[in-house]
Amino acid sequence: MNTLTKPPGSLGRLEELAITIAEMTSDEFPTVTPPGVIVFAADHGVTTEGVSAFPQEVTAQMVKNFLTGGAAINVFSKQISAQLKIVDIGVATDIEGEDLISKKIRNGTANFCQEDAMTKEEAEKAIDIGFTQAEEFIKKGVKCLILGEMGIGNTTTSSAILAAISGKDVQSLVGFGTGIPKEKIVHKQQVIERALKARKPDPSDPIDILVKIGGLEIAAMAGAMLAAASRRVPILVDGFICTVAALIAKLIDSRAANYMIVSHRSVEPGHKTAVQLLEKEPLIDLGLRLGEGSGAAVAHPILQSATLMLKEMATFTSAGVSDKKY
Amino acid sequence: MNTLTKPPGSLGRLEELAITIAEMTSDEFPTVTPPGVIVFAADHGVTTEGVSAFPQEVTAQMVKNFLTGGAAINVFSKQISAQLKIVDIGVATDIEGEDLISKKIRNGTANFCQEDAMTKEEAEKAIDIGFTQAEEFIKKGVKCLILGEMGIGNTTTSSAILAAISGKDVQSLVGFGTGIPKEKIVHKQQVIERALKARKPDPSDPIDILVKIGGLEIAAMAGAMLAAASRRVPILVDGFICTVAALIAKLIDSRAANYMIVSHRSVEPGHKTAVQLLEKEPLIDLGLRLGEGSGAAVAHPILQSATLMLKEMATFTSAGVSDKKY
Repeated sequence: MNTLTKPPGSLGRLEELAITIAEMTSDEFPTVTPPGVIVFAADHGVTTEGVSAFPQEVTAQMVKNFLTGGAAINVFSKQISAQLKIVDIGVATDIEGEDLISKKIRNGTANFCQEDAMTKEEAEKAIDIGFTQAEEFIKKGVKCLILGEMGIGNTTTSSAILAAISGKDVQSLVGFGTGIPKEKIVHKQQVIERALKARKPDPSDPIDILVKIGGLEIAAMAGAMLAAASRRVPILVDGFICTVAALIAKLIDSRAANYMIVSHRSVEPGHKTAVQLLEKEPLIDLGLRLGEGSGAAVAHPILQSATLMLKEMATFTSAGVSDKKY
Repeated sequence: MNTLTKPPGSLGRLEELAITIAEMTSDEFPTVTPPGVIVFAADHGVTTEGVSAFPQEVTAQMVKNFLTGGAAINVFSKQISAQLKIVDIGVATDIEGEDLISKKIRNGTANFCQEDAMTKEEAEKAIDIGFTQAEEFIKKGVKCLILGEMGIGNTTTSSAILAAISGKDVQSLVGFGTGIPKEKIVHKQQVIERALKARKPDPSDPIDILVKIGGLEIAAMAGAMLAAASRRVPILVDGFICTVAALIAKLIDSRAANYMIVSHRSVEPGHKTAVQLLEKEPLIDLGLRLGEGSGAAVAHPILQSATLMLKEMATFTSAGVSDKKY
């Protein structure tokens, strides 16, 4: 790195990133292209508590939007020439579509205020499906994995998971989600507090957390991350929900975190805590809070810059440039 | 913007950027591709004072490196499919190269500790050359202008310009440049303080500043920015030296600043002040301090994401997605 024709350290985090990716992949000149994006969609029973700004049917409607190419993640995936898969892992209604990967485990989770979100078998199956989907992608040549999600209500689920794992006050972890009004935030907090008291998930047991709180897409994302880590493929982590899935993956196998790079700092207040628990520093901070993997896709060119720097820049010797005086 | 299939505001600064670029270009669906990068290279007489970590000949050596494609800006320009021009506006030694645009005004500036860096005619000629180079690029279809520079000693020149414009203590504006040792920073400060006392540039007169301090590449960058602004082409401003050139352009014509977006926050301590004077907020903060336009090139995909969002995303109505409940 220090022999490339630039003052040592002058490319800052790009240099750190290059080293990180080279270590992850055990490749002196690694690549992060083509990237692969998998969006897992599922519904959340907790939406019946009125915690989200959008009605539940938006999950299915957005899946259709993904399939016709009109969502943000379609646009940004195309921009970075990423392969894109849309997986129905548990949307509440039936969806059809030629390009849809139908792996529905159940029609959304149960309302975790009332009962467990899913069974242990369902949680394990969701992880398995995520793992397999990522593995297939990697076998096809994907060199960097981006996970996205669609699931109305899933900031509520993610805040509950994070409260369970971190032991922090729910109040500090709950935000506007897709844009609920201020007075609804207090309600969202109370719903989570009530649910955590009733369910009592074991903070050290990721499967117990998934069973009691959910969600299906979070389990699948965690499974996909475990696959990428086992294949030494860098994982570019998206925002709040994806980072919570990353924490679940880390609880399942702590080595998985070695393959994660957090793409951006989300506006969602819990993200700061989630990122700290993951011991990472986001690459960019653009006030994003969309999900779908969109922030990771937007940040992907930065990873590419880091790897291209390693691969394509001349050295002082090869270019005949004088080295530093001091 | 609020009819696109995403919660309003959920793409944060990308949404602001999209509006900014649409306003700059007067185009509802603007584009920032292809971008064009112009690197202006020139030497600085002040290097004889021992202010830089690299010897002066590195300016010419790096120009050759640009021409053979081995520098960071080559790699990042290629990544974003940018057109790239290398202009010798005042390198101290003769350089040849098929792809080099030779517009040498003089063999580097004079040492501004001893005498004026250049004449008024030379400063105006440098601005004109920059203007013409950018204009040619824009006529060829460049939709976003990135300016880069190469000039050993030019953080010293830029710090001196910034001290003159801002009236701030030199100490707060001077940094390691390409990597001088700590004890050399005090020397660099003293050189600048001595020069400012001797030259007394008029802080409100950009031409007087260029004449007394320099440099030729800074004048050319400012000229290029004026051309882009006059053609309503967005300017993606690079790090410290480029931002100082942007301040010169703004002093020449305050409307030019309306077409500028600051790409990244440089490590160079003076950059914070320069960015504040420009009244901008950098897009990314990756600890870069290389110059050449490299940071702007790395940030360009973010601009592209913002414009593609406008152009390619579906609306709630077109996609049949339910709008917000609240």
